[in-house]
Amino acid sequence: MRPSQAIKFVFMVGIVSCLITICFWSTCATRPLEVVSEDRAEYDSQGNFILTKYHKRGTNSINGEGVESMQVIHPDEYHELECNINSETTIKCRREGNEIYMPFSFIKNYFEVFGEVQETDGYERFEFHHSNSIVHPPRPTYTPGSVFMAFDYYNVENRDRVKCVTASEGVPITTQWNKDGYHYPIQVAQYGLSHHAKHIVNGDPDQIVLEDGEEDNLSDWVMPDKKSQVKTDRDADKKTRVVEFLTSDSLHTKGITIVAADKNNKCIIMDVKFVTNGSVTVVVELTSGETMNIHYVFTNNYISFDGKSNIYYGMSERRTHWMRLARDLKFDLMKGLLLKVRLDKIKESYGLTRVKEIKFHGHGWLDNLTLSYSVHVEQFYDAANWLVQHQDQRGGWPIMVQRRVVTGILELSPGWYSAMGQGQAMSVLVRAYLDSKDDKYLQVAINALNLFEVDSSQGGVRAKFLGQFDWYEEYPTTPSSFVLNGFIYSLLGLYDLKETASGAGKERAERLYNSGMKSLKAMIGMYDSGCGTFYDLRHITVGIEPNRARWDYHTTHINQLLQLMIIDDDEIFKTTVQRWLGYLKGKKSRHN
Amino acid sequence: MRPSQAIKFVFMVGIVSCLITICFWSTCATRPLEVVSEDRAEYDSQGNFILTKYHKRGTNSINGEGVESMQVIHPDEYHELECNINSETTIKCRREGNEIYMPFSFIKNYFEVFGEVQETDGYERFEFHHSNSIVHPPRPTYTPGSVFMAFDYYNVENRDRVKCVTASEGVPITTQWNKDGYHYPIQVAQYGLSHHAKHIVNGDPDQIVLEDGEEDNLSDWVMPDKKSQVKTDRDADKKTRVVEFLTSDSLHTKGITIVAADKNNKCIIMDVKFVTNGSVTVVVELTSGETMNIHYVFTNNYISFDGKSNIYYGMSERRTHWMRLARDLKFDLMKGLLLKVRLDKIKESYGLTRVKEIKFHGHGWLDNLTLSYSVHVEQFYDAANWLVQHQDQRGGWPIMVQRRVVTGILELSPGWYSAMGQGQAMSVLVRAYLDSKDDKYLQVAINALNLFEVDSSQGGVRAKFLGQFDWYEEYPTTPSSFVLNGFIYSLLGLYDLKETASGAGKERAERLYNSGMKSLKAMIGMYDSGCGTFYDLRHITVGIEPNRARWDYHTTHINQLLQLMIIDDDEIFKTTVQRWLGYLKGKKSRHN
Repeated sequence: MRPSQAIKFVFMVGIVSCLITICFWSTCATRPLEVVSEDRAEYDSQGNFILTKYHKRGTNSINGEGVESMQVIHPDEYHELECNINSETTIKCRREGNEIYMPFSFIKNYFEVFGEVQETDGYERFEFHHSNSIVHPPRPTYTPGSVFMAFDYYNVENRDRVKCVTASEGVPITTQWNKDGYHYPIQVAQYGLSHHAKHIVNGDPDQIVLEDGEEDNLSDWVMPDKKSQVKTDRDADKKTRVVEFLTSDSLHTKGITIVAADKNNKCIIMDVKFVTNGSVTVVVELTSGETMNIHYVFTNNYISFDGKSNIYYGMSERRTHWMRLARDLKFDLMKGLLLKVRLDKIKESYGLTRVKEIKFHGHGWLDNLTLSYSVHVEQFYDAANWLVQHQDQRGGWPIMVQRRVVTGILELSPGWYSAMGQGQAMSVLVRAYLDSKDDKYLQVAINALNLFEVDSSQGGVRAKFLGQFDWYEEYPTTPSSFVLNGFIYSLLGLYDLKETASGAGKERAERLYNSGMKSLKAMIGMYDSGCGTFYDLRHITVGIEPNRARWDYHTTHINQLLQLMIIDDDEIFKTTVQRWLGYLKGKKSRHN
Repeated sequence: MRPSQAIKFVFMVGIVSCLITICFWSTCATRPLEVVSEDRAEYDSQGNFILTKYHKRGTNSINGEGVESMQVIHPDEYHELECNINSETTIKCRREGNEIYMPFSFIKNYFEVFGEVQETDGYERFEFHHSNSIVHPPRPTYTPGSVFMAFDYYNVENRDRVKCVTASEGVPITTQWNKDGYHYPIQVAQYGLSHHAKHIVNGDPDQIVLEDGEEDNLSDWVMPDKKSQVKTDRDADKKTRVVEFLTSDSLHTKGITIVAADKNNKCIIMDVKFVTNGSVTVVVELTSGETMNIHYVFTNNYISFDGKSNIYYGMSERRTHWMRLARDLKFDLMKGLLLKVRLDKIKESYGLTRVKEIKFHGHGWLDNLTLSYSVHVEQFYDAANWLVQHQDQRGGWPIMVQRRVVTGILELSPGWYSAMGQGQAMSVLVRAYLDSKDDKYLQVAINALNLFEVDSSQGGVRAKFLGQFDWYEEYPTTPSSFVLNGFIYSLLGLYDLKETASGAGKERAERLYNSGMKSLKAMIGMYDSGCGTFYDLRHITVGIEPNRARWDYHTTHINQLLQLMIIDDDEIFKTTVQRWLGYLKGKKSRHN
């Protein structure tokens, strides 16, 4: 209520109360009755004169439009009341007649719910939500080549724990369980799947080719000094015309430069090869108007920022071969800044507004220098190629950090494998195979099956619930942890592979998939808490408190079942997902 | 707030508002300021004149003692705000500054919690409770002959579904799943255990012997007519002196009468034998001052009420043997009245205030006619004897009703056995044996083991979780239902028996107990919902929604674990019960 309303209100109450008072003071005998009827003063059951609620309607206080209906309650009916919570603590509530009002600041924490006042069309409303996550149903059909679940909504590289996407291999490194950063195969695979999905959903991006070496005219290039050179040439490996460059030094100051100055396309793609030390620098403009240099250099240091205007990405120390560098400069900028600047400050002042120019230093060749709206296909293949490159002898992607699922009880030493990592990798590799027809991807996916046939205790990823139900462990601890979402991701990987491979590979994938689906159908009920889901079965396997899934994991469970429903019409998935959707809105299973 | 307060309050607000109003009306310039300071009216940040909170303190409205502190909030500071619940429904909340207040009428139903305004020492407080049941911890030590759990708090015969305690066998009949009434062995056993416990806790009752035949003086007896006779005699069977009676008819009008007129003792005990048709009538006085005749007659009709002043209990049609009739007349009266009168009316006007007189009709003998404060020992043995009498060839107490645990999915046909019934019976029988030293009770308890060794599918009570963990089923459905509380009761029965029996009986009981305890420790986690417990595992065995245990069953689970902790110090019971106790107060297990 704004002050002007408040005054009116005090004024109105004043009139009524005054007249009533006068009546009680016996200075008037007839007048109050007229006012009474207007303002709903009444006699109570004992014949006493009391003032009751009345309604005030006025124009909306925010934008002058609409009519706000607001019931003002007389203070006689509304007062503070102490409330004793479970005979343990006390809070202040309000009483109004027979109704008790409890403060949301209490309710929010006590019941783990959400709420905020929002204004729509000039009305203020309080929006109460039981949960804080959103279900993105998958597309209505599913094949191994199509969008994975609703991964087009995933933004892996945006996550806090992603240190950066490396310039050496184009995949994210995480700081989740080791602040130095390491490659987490699940994250790499999800990065690949999300960009695969985004590409399908968004289609080919807008692109501007800045240089492809096909024309002799190189006048777009600005030379830093007379010693620097640039010329077109035919490349024997690529079998196409490329641009050769040579600068007077390999530092970042005197590069040959091409102006980009494009506002829409904030990604860059290029093929580049160096024979000396050298670098590529992309100069970008920020919201604040400042410029920032993003340097891609030959070092093993993933990322650094000088705190001023230079961010460095390491392309490793290898060179002399053609590399494809495909970078989303928005994230390269953000991750660099994050090393020294708070996120809210970045969002406020340091967004990327445009790519200004690109510079090359050292001696090398470049081709297909392109500004692009997105680089999803390149990012997807970077993930797939990383998986091909880093699969080990056992067909796995070992995770080189200590993982403490439950400290002292469920722990994994560095070098463990994850069924989720194996399965999500399969989903990436199958998609790369289906798109490229390159058998290597399919073969690597088949190799990834091996660890599904090895028990957790033997360094594999297979658990058996009570010795009977095969379960592919996201965290192959001993005792088993039976994480639900990781298992389902592994099943989706097996599904993708069994639908794509043939012969022995297909048979193995199919057997593992069928066995896992049998377990899932038998055990899914164990994850139902009656008002949400459990993340894992630690309360059964080690007898400690249940690990309730927070709402975004509960939503992941739902999204996964929605995906499974498309490939398996078992009734259990339908009834379960229906119930789990209800939990998001505060519904509970019945009690006896 | 009571009307007198309300008037005072309106009056006070009236004065202030009136003066403020007058000020706004510019009819006075100086007077309001004096009032303002007294009543905490203030200028707001825009310099507008507003009335703010003030405190009212007055003497307590109930007993004139104590001081009530109540903060009254000015209407300017709060208003109604629409609240949208999960984008589905809308309720009315209150807003005060940045705080939102939600109505408890909503909270109560939405979150399934409890609350009521209570007045203590003149203060009104709102008592919020997460759950509505109370934990009665068991006694700190346990032996098979001691109080069973906290069953001294149980009042089996008080339950709505108990039609009455029969006069023929002295055990309750239930109408739970068949309105005609039937014997439910679990209920009979719990009736026995509760009275066993009450006797231990309360000790021997006060008693007044009205007649034991030991004295020749029978002048206390009032004769209805000249044909009726009463005399003492020695009874060959009982080897003691008894009273023989003969009345002119066997109707209930002309009995020989003895006056009781005792206010404290509302139970009656007697040994009685008839050779003709006959009856015993107890005349009791009600709160209303009316009298009621409770007739014990030879009929198979358990109970009836003529709607006026006669309640009839059937002692079956058998006679000519000595019977011990031990009746709690409070319940006999109540159950009779309940056939035609609502419970609240009974509580209001038809409580039993005193036993007035006892009448005998027909030809028979009586002995040990006693008024007693309680008849727990007799009630306990009535249950034990019923179990001895009704055990069948398989060692079980078949339940002759259809039981639909989940209609169409988990059903049992009449004639099923319950592991809980078997186990609770053992607990009764072992106590009867330990008290009486009569081997028949122990033998019947050992016979009751048989069905624990027979699978549910074969008409027994044993299930196996995933073929591995023995579980004794309260409801031996196929698929299994794995009801937790019934299983633990069966384990306590096995414990009582293994601790009491010797030889083969002990070995069998011990093996079954150990096997069951192993299952319980392995599976207890499956019943933990993270904020309560599950009643059974239907969500796992048949994949339907979890059956959350209502708070009184959750409390039963806690009480059972508290009992088990005394006989088995496994850590799992300690940590689990601690967590489950927390759930009663709204605590939840952590989410990830």
